[in-house]
Amino acid sequence: MAVYTDVASEDLERFLAAYDVGDLLSYKGIAEGVENSNFLVNTRRGHFILTLYEKRVAAEDLPFFLALMEHLARRGITCPQPVRSRLGETLGTLAGRPAAMVTFLDGMWIRRPSVVHCTALGAALAKLHLAGADFAFTRRNALALDGWRALHATIGARADEVHPGLGDDIARELDHLKRHWPRDLPQGVIHADLFPDNVFFLADRLSGLIDFYFACIDTLAYDVMICLNAWCFEQDHAYNVTKGRGLLQAYMQVRKLTPAEHDALPLLARGAALRFLLTRLVDWLNVPPGALVKPKDPQEYRRKLRFHQTIASARDYGIA
Amino acid sequence: MAVYTDVASEDLERFLAAYDVGDLLSYKGIAEGVENSNFLVNTRRGHFILTLYEKRVAAEDLPFFLALMEHLARRGITCPQPVRSRLGETLGTLAGRPAAMVTFLDGMWIRRPSVVHCTALGAALAKLHLAGADFAFTRRNALALDGWRALHATIGARADEVHPGLGDDIARELDHLKRHWPRDLPQGVIHADLFPDNVFFLADRLSGLIDFYFACIDTLAYDVMICLNAWCFEQDHAYNVTKGRGLLQAYMQVRKLTPAEHDALPLLARGAALRFLLTRLVDWLNVPPGALVKPKDPQEYRRKLRFHQTIASARDYGIA
Repeated sequence: MAVYTDVASEDLERFLAAYDVGDLLSYKGIAEGVENSNFLVNTRRGHFILTLYEKRVAAEDLPFFLALMEHLARRGITCPQPVRSRLGETLGTLAGRPAAMVTFLDGMWIRRPSVVHCTALGAALAKLHLAGADFAFTRRNALALDGWRALHATIGARADEVHPGLGDDIARELDHLKRHWPRDLPQGVIHADLFPDNVFFLADRLSGLIDFYFACIDTLAYDVMICLNAWCFEQDHAYNVTKGRGLLQAYMQVRKLTPAEHDALPLLARGAALRFLLTRLVDWLNVPPGALVKPKDPQEYRRKLRFHQTIASARDYGIA
Repeated sequence: MAVYTDVASEDLERFLAAYDVGDLLSYKGIAEGVENSNFLVNTRRGHFILTLYEKRVAAEDLPFFLALMEHLARRGITCPQPVRSRLGETLGTLAGRPAAMVTFLDGMWIRRPSVVHCTALGAALAKLHLAGADFAFTRRNALALDGWRALHATIGARADEVHPGLGDDIARELDHLKRHWPRDLPQGVIHADLFPDNVFFLADRLSGLIDFYFACIDTLAYDVMICLNAWCFEQDHAYNVTKGRGLLQAYMQVRKLTPAEHDALPLLARGAALRFLLTRLVDWLNVPPGALVKPKDPQEYRRKLRFHQTIASARDYGIA
C-alpha cells in the first residue's frame, strides 16, 4: 500500500497535455504496489494507471519493462499497455520522477486461490514464457544467487532475531545452492513476482497479468517455482499437492519441461523460497519500530524453504 | 491515506449481490480519508466509492451522514449519493464493518487554491448551509467547546513538547472562548471539515463536495471560519486577505451574515483554529516513533490561532 508522492492536479494536467487522452476528470492514489506511487486516472478517453517510479526502481530498467508489456500484448498476453504520448514516448517526468501511464485492466486478484485459479495461473505463466521467447531486450536478475549473497551479508547475524539459528541455516543453504544451482536450463523472460496480487480474474477466468517491475531474463522453471511457492501453500504453510499438481500440469500442457528442468524443480523451489525469505527479512529487520505499514512475515518463507529441503524429487510435488 | 481493512473479492461480490449494480469488474483500495477504508469499485453499471467504517466513526452516526447526503442532493448540492440495496438499505456489513456505497464524483481537489477557488468555495458553503436548513436529523458536534476541553485534558503538559508554553496558551484560550463563545448565532447543518481535499473542481468550476463524516448541527458562521483557516493562508502561514475577502464575500452574496455573526467572526476563527490545533496535537503526540504515516503539523494551527488573537474586528479579514 503506497503513495509516496502526491501529485497536484495542475501538474498532472500539464503532464497529460502531451497525451491524446482528453480532459482529466479525476485521479486517486491507489493502495497497490510497494515500490512505486500509483494513481488511477480517469479522462474523457478512459481509465489509466499512472505510475511514478520511486527510488527503488532503476530508471535505466524502465524501457525494458515498458517494451516487454508491449511485446507480450502483441503475442496475445493480456497485460497493461503503455500509453504513448503524441511524440511516441512511453516514459515522461512528473513531480520530479520518471512516470508512465498504462491502460487499466478489469479484474480482481484472488485473496484465497483455489485449484481452479492455480491451474489458470500455470497455463498463463507458460504462455508468458513462450510469448517472451523472441523479446529482444535483456535485463539480468538482480535478485539471483549473487544478489541473495549480498542480501544475506547486509542482514548478518540479525536473521537470528527472527528465528534462532536462521542466519546459519541461510548460510548453509546459500552454499548448497551455489554448488548445485543449474546453469544450463532454458532461459527467457520471467515475471519473477507473479504472486496472486499480480494476477487478475473475472469470474474464475484469468483476465490479465500486471506489475512487470521484477521481470528479467532468467531460468524459466525458476519462475514456475516462485509461483508454486506463492499459490500452492495453505494459510498454515502446508503444501497443497492438488493445487501444486494443477499449476504444474497446466504449465506443462502449454510448455513441456525438459528432463533437466523436471529434475531441478526441488532445487529451484529452494532458491525461490530463499529469495523471498531474504527480501522479507531485510524489510522486516529495517522497519522503524511502531511503523503503521507492517512488512510481510519472513517466517512463511522460512517454512517453505524447510519443506522444499525435504523434497526428494519433483514427483513429490504431485506430478509424474 | 488509508486502507485499514482488506476485502476479498468473493466477499465483495457477496456484498454487491444485494445491490442492483451489475457484475463486479474491479476494485482498488484508495489512499483517501484518514478515518475509514475506501475502495473505488467498478461494476457493469458504473463507478462507486465503497467505504468501510472503522472504529473512529460511531456506527449510530452513519444514518445521519447518509441521509444528509441524500437531503443535500435533493436541494441541488452535488455530493456523493448513497446507493440503496434492493431492500432500500444504504448501510450494509462487509468484512465485519459497517459499509456503504456512494456514487463516484468526477473532479480533483486543489493542492494550491487560488482566489478563484476560495470564492467558489465560499458560495458553495453558503448553499450547503441553506440546503441543510430543513434537514430533520440532528447530531451534536463532538468537537465543540466541551470536546476541546476533553482533548486538552488528554494532552496535558505534553503540548509543550511541540512548542514551549503551548499548554498554558491553550488553557488560556479555552478559558477565553468559554467566557465569550456566542450561543445565539444561527445554527444548522455544518460540514465542519471542508478542507481543500474535500472539494472537487473541474477546470476551476467547483464540481462537488465530499466527506460529510464530521457534519453536525452547530453554528453556521463557525463553519465559515473553519474554511477561512483551511483555504486562505499561504504556505508560510500568512493570511491572504484577497482569498479571505473572496471567500467571505461570495458566502455573504448567497447567505447574508447577521450583524451578530459578523461581529463574532474573529472569535469563531479562534475556536476553529483551536479545534484543529487540538486534534493535530493529539495525533502528533500519539504517533508511534518512526511511523511511516506522518501526522499533520500542529504548528500550522498554532500560528493561525495567534493570528486571529490579534484581530480586532471582522473588517481585518477584508470585508466591510
